[in-house]
Amino acid sequence: MTRKTIRLLMPQWQGGNNPNYSFGAELLAWLAPDNDDQPLLHVPVQAYDGTPLENENGMNGRTQLLEQLKSAHHLIEAHKPERIVMFGGDCLVEQAPFAYLNERYGGELGLIWVDAHSDLVRYVGYDNGHTLPLGNLLGIGDDEFVKQVKVPLKPENVFIAGLKVPTEQETEVISEAFQRLGIYPAEEDSKVIERLGIRTAGAEELTDNLDVIKEWIRASGIKHLAIHLDVDVLDPKAFRSQLFANPSAPVNYSPEGTMQLPQLLTLLKELSAVTDVVGLGITEHLPWDSINLKKLLGEIPILNS
Amino acid sequence: MTRKTIRLLMPQWQGGNNPNYSFGAELLAWLAPDNDDQPLLHVPVQAYDGTPLENENGMNGRTQLLEQLKSAHHLIEAHKPERIVMFGGDCLVEQAPFAYLNERYGGELGLIWVDAHSDLVRYVGYDNGHTLPLGNLLGIGDDEFVKQVKVPLKPENVFIAGLKVPTEQETEVISEAFQRLGIYPAEEDSKVIERLGIRTAGAEELTDNLDVIKEWIRASGIKHLAIHLDVDVLDPKAFRSQLFANPSAPVNYSPEGTMQLPQLLTLLKELSAVTDVVGLGITEHLPWDSINLKKLLGEIPILNS
Repeated sequence: MTRKTIRLLMPQWQGGNNPNYSFGAELLAWLAPDNDDQPLLHVPVQAYDGTPLENENGMNGRTQLLEQLKSAHHLIEAHKPERIVMFGGDCLVEQAPFAYLNERYGGELGLIWVDAHSDLVRYVGYDNGHTLPLGNLLGIGDDEFVKQVKVPLKPENVFIAGLKVPTEQETEVISEAFQRLGIYPAEEDSKVIERLGIRTAGAEELTDNLDVIKEWIRASGIKHLAIHLDVDVLDPKAFRSQLFANPSAPVNYSPEGTMQLPQLLTLLKELSAVTDVVGLGITEHLPWDSINLKKLLGEIPILNS
Repeated sequence: MTRKTIRLLMPQWQGGNNPNYSFGAELLAWLAPDNDDQPLLHVPVQAYDGTPLENENGMNGRTQLLEQLKSAHHLIEAHKPERIVMFGGDCLVEQAPFAYLNERYGGELGLIWVDAHSDLVRYVGYDNGHTLPLGNLLGIGDDEFVKQVKVPLKPENVFIAGLKVPTEQETEVISEAFQRLGIYPAEEDSKVIERLGIRTAGAEELTDNLDVIKEWIRASGIKHLAIHLDVDVLDPKAFRSQLFANPSAPVNYSPEGTMQLPQLLTLLKELSAVTDVVGLGITEHLPWDSINLKKLLGEIPILNS
């Protein structure tokens, strides 16, 4: 029997303060395989109109982000699906679907966060909401966003896969960049992870087998699983359509993902084999070449006259 | 007054013997700006079905390529447009529209070939038709393809912009790779260019101003111009969606393009300002990230069940 599954397209860009996220979401939805059983619903997002976002109480575009979160929530509640696929947009798009799924599945939802970053803490001075969706879902993020999560996830039901712990050399480069940019984490990610007892594994640990993840699923008794995928978990040399591989604006304040595409596919397939996957969110897709090509095509006279 | 302009989508892959060209063409057409005055027509192309192409008299997929060339020709003749935009596909898609335009404009069409390669000669042992579309249009390419060009272009009306002349070191690497792969050009590109008297300029020469091109347009009395764009003219560090930047199969038998995106846009705009652009073909678009992501999405269980 087909279970009720919806797809959400949420071209949210305010969480990363970068309008390119909107196009990334649209391309992602276009690339996805057709599936007549999965209607595609559009979450209303205020398009970028040239006005810079306001920094409201430490978050750029806070009002818009909260409104959009509520729109996503209403849309989901109107359909009450059993499974949700989310096409983002910045990472913060994950909050509405995963909060709903956790409530639906009795507060026992498992969540695998496939990401080079933990997304648990606020980075003061960076002030973009996409640094803390996982924090919000666990009830320790931004107060106004946490209030929208009726049933916070249990930390023991969360696993961060592909987390990149910077090398000593990377740490030095990042610290210098942070200092120059006036950025600092409200609390160190690693300390939050330890305090909450969240399980993690780097991409390297997961190369040969996924036993550590399967064991976590078994031991935690996870029956329903949501998967978050931030494409920056991938090695930017293998997959360049991500924040940290912008050819015209290199970033040096974040460690690079190291996961390879075949490894990611294996992970997604095996998770589906050992548990019931009820949620999938794909985020932070920034297809630089297509963005640049679209811009170029939009200015070539013969195409526009 | 609006002049009759058609857009052609020709997802031809046989000319490069690489099925990924088909998706590259479709994405290109999707990225192009909407224009109600420019109907998009699909040139029938035999989709890749897993069967390897046959090498027929020194060209992989010769029969299919000839059939598809004729289909494009018929479609154009049925519409008799004043201007054509072509979304490829491998470089060989350019033959039908540019041959038609040259005939339409009295054999006096100007053609600027924006490409890191001259596309003038056959590479024996490589045997892919996309190495010689310009040769065909000039009447010196493959016999069967040349026969389909009613009025060959005049060499003095052709300019190759962004042509990459390999450095000494690159020449050495390429020669070694060619030797290993058993490839050799039927005649050296540079000799053909010299023999025919075709004007060329590298991307570096065109950095500060485009006087050399404008002077060519003036001196040749070009009134109607077609523009061929092979995206491999671009620096693969700036634009990775091209043959020579496949993250999982690096190529070392071709020099890399060096043109930057702003320079390309300036070139396209200035050409439109100084002459009447009646044709534009964009070819060899291979968006590796989107290709890989589409493949991944096509195998994720929750999206496909």
